[in-house]
Amino acid sequence: MEEHFYSRLGKALRPGVIARVVLAAFERAKRGEKLISLTGGSYDPESLPVREVEEVIRDIPPEDWRDILQYGSNLGSGKLRAELAKFSGEAGIEADPEGEIIVTTGSQQALDLISRVFLDPGDLVVVGEPTYLQALASFRLYGAEIETTPIDEEGMNIDALEEKLKDLRAEGRRVKLLYTVPSYQNPTGTVMTEHRRRRLLELAAEYDFLIVEDNPYGYISFEGSMPKPIKAYDKEGRVIYLSTFSKIVSPGLRIGWAIGRRGFIEKMALAKMNADICSDGLSQYVAAELLRRGLVHKLIDRIRRVYREKRDLMLESMELHFPEEAEWREPKGGLFLWVEMPIGFDADALLDDALRRGVAYIPGSNFFTDPSVRNYLRLNYSYPSREEIAEGIGILGELFREALKH
Amino acid sequence: MEEHFYSRLGKALRPGVIARVVLAAFERAKRGEKLISLTGGSYDPESLPVREVEEVIRDIPPEDWRDILQYGSNLGSGKLRAELAKFSGEAGIEADPEGEIIVTTGSQQALDLISRVFLDPGDLVVVGEPTYLQALASFRLYGAEIETTPIDEEGMNIDALEEKLKDLRAEGRRVKLLYTVPSYQNPTGTVMTEHRRRRLLELAAEYDFLIVEDNPYGYISFEGSMPKPIKAYDKEGRVIYLSTFSKIVSPGLRIGWAIGRRGFIEKMALAKMNADICSDGLSQYVAAELLRRGLVHKLIDRIRRVYREKRDLMLESMELHFPEEAEWREPKGGLFLWVEMPIGFDADALLDDALRRGVAYIPGSNFFTDPSVRNYLRLNYSYPSREEIAEGIGILGELFREALKH
Repeated sequence: MEEHFYSRLGKALRPGVIARVVLAAFERAKRGEKLISLTGGSYDPESLPVREVEEVIRDIPPEDWRDILQYGSNLGSGKLRAELAKFSGEAGIEADPEGEIIVTTGSQQALDLISRVFLDPGDLVVVGEPTYLQALASFRLYGAEIETTPIDEEGMNIDALEEKLKDLRAEGRRVKLLYTVPSYQNPTGTVMTEHRRRRLLELAAEYDFLIVEDNPYGYISFEGSMPKPIKAYDKEGRVIYLSTFSKIVSPGLRIGWAIGRRGFIEKMALAKMNADICSDGLSQYVAAELLRRGLVHKLIDRIRRVYREKRDLMLESMELHFPEEAEWREPKGGLFLWVEMPIGFDADALLDDALRRGVAYIPGSNFFTDPSVRNYLRLNYSYPSREEIAEGIGILGELFREALKH
Repeated sequence: MEEHFYSRLGKALRPGVIARVVLAAFERAKRGEKLISLTGGSYDPESLPVREVEEVIRDIPPEDWRDILQYGSNLGSGKLRAELAKFSGEAGIEADPEGEIIVTTGSQQALDLISRVFLDPGDLVVVGEPTYLQALASFRLYGAEIETTPIDEEGMNIDALEEKLKDLRAEGRRVKLLYTVPSYQNPTGTVMTEHRRRRLLELAAEYDFLIVEDNPYGYISFEGSMPKPIKAYDKEGRVIYLSTFSKIVSPGLRIGWAIGRRGFIEKMALAKMNADICSDGLSQYVAAELLRRGLVHKLIDRIRRVYREKRDLMLESMELHFPEEAEWREPKGGLFLWVEMPIGFDADALLDDALRRGVAYIPGSNFFTDPSVRNYLRLNYSYPSREEIAEGIGILGELFREALKH
């Protein structure tokens, strides 16, 4: 009796590649075998801030507990917004905590709220390609049409974007919103140059679109400090800036935030009333205290060291084990390695073999609007242990060499 | 530059009556004056489970902390789902924690996920009237059309519903979903009789629609135990049952859950990936432990006593101060008192006077699809202190007497 009740969207919702990997892990576990996951963007388990969070919670005075356990503001806790304004200020972003910042249940919710507030069916959204499509499912859910523009070594290719914008304008189509992950982009790891960031803002003004700047990875910079966000150059208020604690502090706390002009944030807060009323009080308190005590900076320093070391280990293992035909660039930050294989290599078909041998990765087709692109894969080094990285890359290397021989 | 970017929905989002009250409270606070709020459904501040939550968190072993701070399942923590299955089992609801339960960020998110999975533009949703419309904004957001059916002393009037269903069928229109709060309904406080609950299920089968049973207030029963949920009579799997910790444990924890047939829950879990990926790990852990230790039952007993006493106090104060023309029924549970005034009385217009005198309530027009119904108001007794209840009702009584004299 189920099927005829679903909406168009409900029918379209299908388990993705992650669900396939989770199922494989479950089945292997039943047989007493493990699965090395080089898939998601989970936190290094050993580095999670257990002691820091415990400490903060131990110190909560009774009067603050009452606020924590009661309904909170749909904008998020005032204390956290004030701390986030300071934290973002260090990156060159000015924001009034009273009205220009909203706390969200992870960055995913920010994307969802933006979709509600801005996107009507048929509206045009431009994204760089390859990109993590699951993150953009919200745009599609509200009926937006996605146009892509290529990403090269310097991030989103702005000349190609300008061509695209001209073509669309010639067709009488207006771009409403451009989505970009300018720093250590997922999956390519590339950083958009400062020149391109400035050009992008000029194009936004010229073609009258908004920029959604998603910055989950910027703080995980292996050489020097975080690249300056596009929002820091934004004089006009065209950028809605998103960031999150998920990659730098803890994913389980579900702390994300958006910064933008007052009117936009106000609408997002109203939309949040329909989504989940307000975010969890305890994790907002913890987040504010971790910031206030300067612990977030320490956690960022720690996790950058850990991820740089893991990246190096993965790169060394790949040099040793991967076939000559495999190509990759050294990411200067973030959590992922993006691997290009020769045309004809089928990362989707090989995933089942890899799962049987006990290793999981994300086939590159999940990052292209054209799913026939099958010669890329994304590897994650933040979650697996050092031993798992070495072993997992060894197994994949063997599998890929065999596959290329056929 | 803002306006032309908003979606149809974004344009429609406007601050509601609660925002007006919050603003008034803020302005009074600036002048050193307080505002007695008889508006929202917040928790009694003195009864919030500070000690219980602290205790549970103090006992978390390090290995559990790592799970808490990492990404979790989009279905919610397995441990919490197992506890919720037991908890709901006591109310006569059978559910497999592996696949028939999903944890949501409050009940509001469950409504949002249901809307995504089931509602296309033009789909028909039936709700009892009066009802809290803000909760139903999600249905409208996805384009559903709302039809209403009256609520009387025994809950949703099933004969009127049957007439409505017949009429709609005659017009060739199919109802997809019916939304009901059968126990201590907001705002009327009524309870749907067992007979009507069974008849509603028969009608759902006959007219082939789904029932969304929202049960935030059922546990707050002042005489005997919670009325048996409709879901407990549901053999066919037509009911999606929602409940929450917001009224019985803590709103700030943002713990809600939905129980339904496997296929429905699976789709809701996929939709949750787009909404916020997963709910907060720490509050889910706390919720599971409060259930496992039997503390939720103790909290329910405590809050029932507190709210019954506050209800009695509010009823006494109303007897004493309200004009003769005012009518109300004694609610047998829940958080609200629903007051009917003579036709011509304008609760919307009087709110500003009330705010100036330091008391806030919710005008009844917020609970009707026809906003010209202005002779009702909803009063909340869960949040204000005993002193505030007595003082607030006194002030309102005076104001209403004056208004009726003109």
